[in-house]
Amino acid sequence: MNGAETLVKTLLASGVDVCFANPGTSEMHFVAALDTHPEMRCILCLFEGGATGAADGYFRMTGKVAATLLHLAPGFGNGFANLHNARKAQSGVLNIMGDHASYHLRHESPLKGDTSGISQAVSHWTRVSQDARSVAADGAAAVQAARARGGQIATLILPANTAWEAAVGREVSAAPPALLRPSDAEIDAAARALCQPGAALLVDGAALWGAAGQVAASIAAKTGCRLLAPCLPARIRRGEGAVRFERLAYVVEENVAALAGITHLVLCGTQRPTSFFAYPGKVSLPAPADACVLELCSSDMDYEATLDALAKVLGADPLPPDALQGIDLPNLPHGPMSLDGIGQALAALLPQDAIVVDEAITNSRFLAAPTVSARGHDWLAVTGGAIGFGQPAALGAAVACPDRKVVVLEGDGSGMYTLQALWTMAREGLDVTVVVFSNRGYQILRGELANVGVTEVGRNAVRMFDVVEPSLDWVALAKGHGVAGVRVTDLDQFSDAFAAAMAQKGPMLIEVIC
Amino acid sequence: MNGAETLVKTLLASGVDVCFANPGTSEMHFVAALDTHPEMRCILCLFEGGATGAADGYFRMTGKVAATLLHLAPGFGNGFANLHNARKAQSGVLNIMGDHASYHLRHESPLKGDTSGISQAVSHWTRVSQDARSVAADGAAAVQAARARGGQIATLILPANTAWEAAVGREVSAAPPALLRPSDAEIDAAARALCQPGAALLVDGAALWGAAGQVAASIAAKTGCRLLAPCLPARIRRGEGAVRFERLAYVVEENVAALAGITHLVLCGTQRPTSFFAYPGKVSLPAPADACVLELCSSDMDYEATLDALAKVLGADPLPPDALQGIDLPNLPHGPMSLDGIGQALAALLPQDAIVVDEAITNSRFLAAPTVSARGHDWLAVTGGAIGFGQPAALGAAVACPDRKVVVLEGDGSGMYTLQALWTMAREGLDVTVVVFSNRGYQILRGELANVGVTEVGRNAVRMFDVVEPSLDWVALAKGHGVAGVRVTDLDQFSDAFAAAMAQKGPMLIEVIC
Repeated sequence: MNGAETLVKTLLASGVDVCFANPGTSEMHFVAALDTHPEMRCILCLFEGGATGAADGYFRMTGKVAATLLHLAPGFGNGFANLHNARKAQSGVLNIMGDHASYHLRHESPLKGDTSGISQAVSHWTRVSQDARSVAADGAAAVQAARARGGQIATLILPANTAWEAAVGREVSAAPPALLRPSDAEIDAAARALCQPGAALLVDGAALWGAAGQVAASIAAKTGCRLLAPCLPARIRRGEGAVRFERLAYVVEENVAALAGITHLVLCGTQRPTSFFAYPGKVSLPAPADACVLELCSSDMDYEATLDALAKVLGADPLPPDALQGIDLPNLPHGPMSLDGIGQALAALLPQDAIVVDEAITNSRFLAAPTVSARGHDWLAVTGGAIGFGQPAALGAAVACPDRKVVVLEGDGSGMYTLQALWTMAREGLDVTVVVFSNRGYQILRGELANVGVTEVGRNAVRMFDVVEPSLDWVALAKGHGVAGVRVTDLDQFSDAFAAAMAQKGPMLIEVIC
Repeated sequence: MNGAETLVKTLLASGVDVCFANPGTSEMHFVAALDTHPEMRCILCLFEGGATGAADGYFRMTGKVAATLLHLAPGFGNGFANLHNARKAQSGVLNIMGDHASYHLRHESPLKGDTSGISQAVSHWTRVSQDARSVAADGAAAVQAARARGGQIATLILPANTAWEAAVGREVSAAPPALLRPSDAEIDAAARALCQPGAALLVDGAALWGAAGQVAASIAAKTGCRLLAPCLPARIRRGEGAVRFERLAYVVEENVAALAGITHLVLCGTQRPTSFFAYPGKVSLPAPADACVLELCSSDMDYEATLDALAKVLGADPLPPDALQGIDLPNLPHGPMSLDGIGQALAALLPQDAIVVDEAITNSRFLAAPTVSARGHDWLAVTGGAIGFGQPAALGAAVACPDRKVVVLEGDGSGMYTLQALWTMAREGLDVTVVVFSNRGYQILRGELANVGVTEVGRNAVRMFDVVEPSLDWVALAKGHGVAGVRVTDLDQFSDAFAAAMAQKGPMLIEVIC
């Protein structure tokens, strides 16, 4: 047995059985080891950003850590942006990064790079295996690290010789350390704060989609406080039967207005609201400067137990039925293309328990509003703001939940970053419908230029914002990756195409000209 | 005037007038400043790997530093792999990486990341501008750093407020420090070594394509030493009129055989030959262990002056005409598809002074051999071994040399990494012909698995190597990006398509089914 085999056995024994991979030479022994362990599901991605984004989407929907297989520092670089998103989503991801044999690293070979340096720029945990006999224990520690504090980025760097040299046995990952909890005094203080006029409770994580959300809602019902959710949640339950949250916005002024009047803000499983960007003359922190902010419980603490304790102290009753979202499915819209109309069609047609991955950027707000009235669904946002998240995360979510329909709402600018994920959807027969909003450019940047105070847009800027001359042809791009596509130019066409996509299994792309 | 404007003025005053860009919000003031400076040519790339690879190709063909515009740590991550290649090619690249306003960085906003950390993992020089009034001087220092030591990766991190706050003036980059040279004693020792039986001179950099190559060849002619070139040069002149070099190989055993018998190896502008990867039981350093290796002059020293000094000490005469490559253009091949045949067709049809970007991986060796008999051309290799280089580098080379035809030889696996560069070729009307070798997979990995001692390939491995089910359709992918494409399945079709591509201007893609 060699180091790579002990690692695969360790991963499997520790419950990691999916690997999103883009291997190279330094990972060949790991690949060979996978061959003798067919219970590890290997999914090839044609670009590492697809692998890391998939692992993020997979964790968001299962709470399970998937492995990625990345080739040296450049391969890790290709996966960096989606690891950034995963980090912000508090997704547990285990990266196996191959490196040169340790004795080869003293020579300046072409692919030698700073594997530790780039890993440490985004990973919570980085370790370089020192010899083959350490690999199993290192792998178990990496799994533990990926599971710790609610979910972390753990990167195990595997010099090629530690994979191919002899080793024995396997390890089983230990449970991560127990999550920290606030003290009783802090719980009591938060309970008192929430009973004040103008109080609000901001929650995140599983409280946005799991049972903890109903506890949070019961606290709001008991105290009369407002119940808030962040702008870009890793996952939030929406539509029929969902807890009602007031979700923060992207635009600074909207958040300032939404948070005005808050006197006490209790944070549970999250951090204080922060503007996405700073702009001249606008605030970084949109909550009122004189609000009392209680950082009760950060995202890496046990916020579910904290909510339970808070509900107990407050004597909050189980949630009244009217605290959950009721719906009235809209009719199908007709006529010329509009984003509101698309949102209405989505609300009418999204199947029960759909998973919606939202990277529609400037279009999102128009789509999010009507779909509150859809059947119950989960909504995954670009937590870290790094574009190129949508299609890979959908890939991972579809692997995680093969019986649920996955819908990606994708900007054309953002979609181009990691379009290679389409191929993996085709190969694996994943049940994903990709809706691309072809507004032919980075429309958000037009708004951002105005936000920073520039009102006149010249030729250089226009050519940086507009993706025209030529226009992208997303139907051809889909075909190139082996995915069927259709272009729609009015609402009737969209509804027909989307309904057909919902009625079939497997990948499909709809290009919306808007 | 604000910091961003002083930076644009500084770049222009310092001779940097091309910017490969993929901007975001934090770079909006820089974009606004570009609007008032149309003499800066801005080229939009739909993925940052396109921007960094283009800057590399541009430097290789002009020796001029281009700027890239990258959006925070994730954007830099997307450009990392091609910065790795540029670093190994000793290309000077100036990255402008936007960051959050410095006062915003103490808050945990979604896109906050370790901008310095990821930069330092690949850049030679990293600086964070501290205030708007420092930006011009920082920009000038960054240009100087990018030009120093023959070419470096320099990254200037620009917090958004340093771009928008008031500043005055501009700076002009100072010349970089003079390059180091070896001592006279070292030159004399190298000269003596080269006169020994079994001596060889290994050169790199401009010696492979410029006048210094003829000096190197004159030294070889005078001393009888062998004249060697690395396996993956940043740029090498080939075909008619080129200096004859023995180029090292990728395969360890071939290099061991090629270097056998060498007693004295003089390195000038390069480092000692190193195996691309380590493998069990194979050497990291393929030169004979008992060879005397003289590290006369590293790549960041003045190797051109060193070669001149060496020639003078040796009394080497100007190069005899027969030291340069003569050619006999082959006939066009006919019949079933073969890589040798494609190489023959390329040799027959490549126009004078074509620029060939080689990322054909397993196919390269078959294409390189016949094209020694082509018209004079430059050949650019993947110096750092990080795939996704070909199309972006071709884009940059075409911007650098608008009057020369650029041909990319691209693997289908590697081509998928940065296919978005096709769109920029279409938008800018760049004269690039992309030849994609559709062997439907990562064929190199099959060889690498055998190299590490695995002879049986199971299902998990096969599914990691083969890009089939579905097959990619490169003609559709090209169309999706606005580039015309054609698929060819025999040599006659290839010759017809390639001849047509050579006869026209603008981008074209040829998918070779092989």
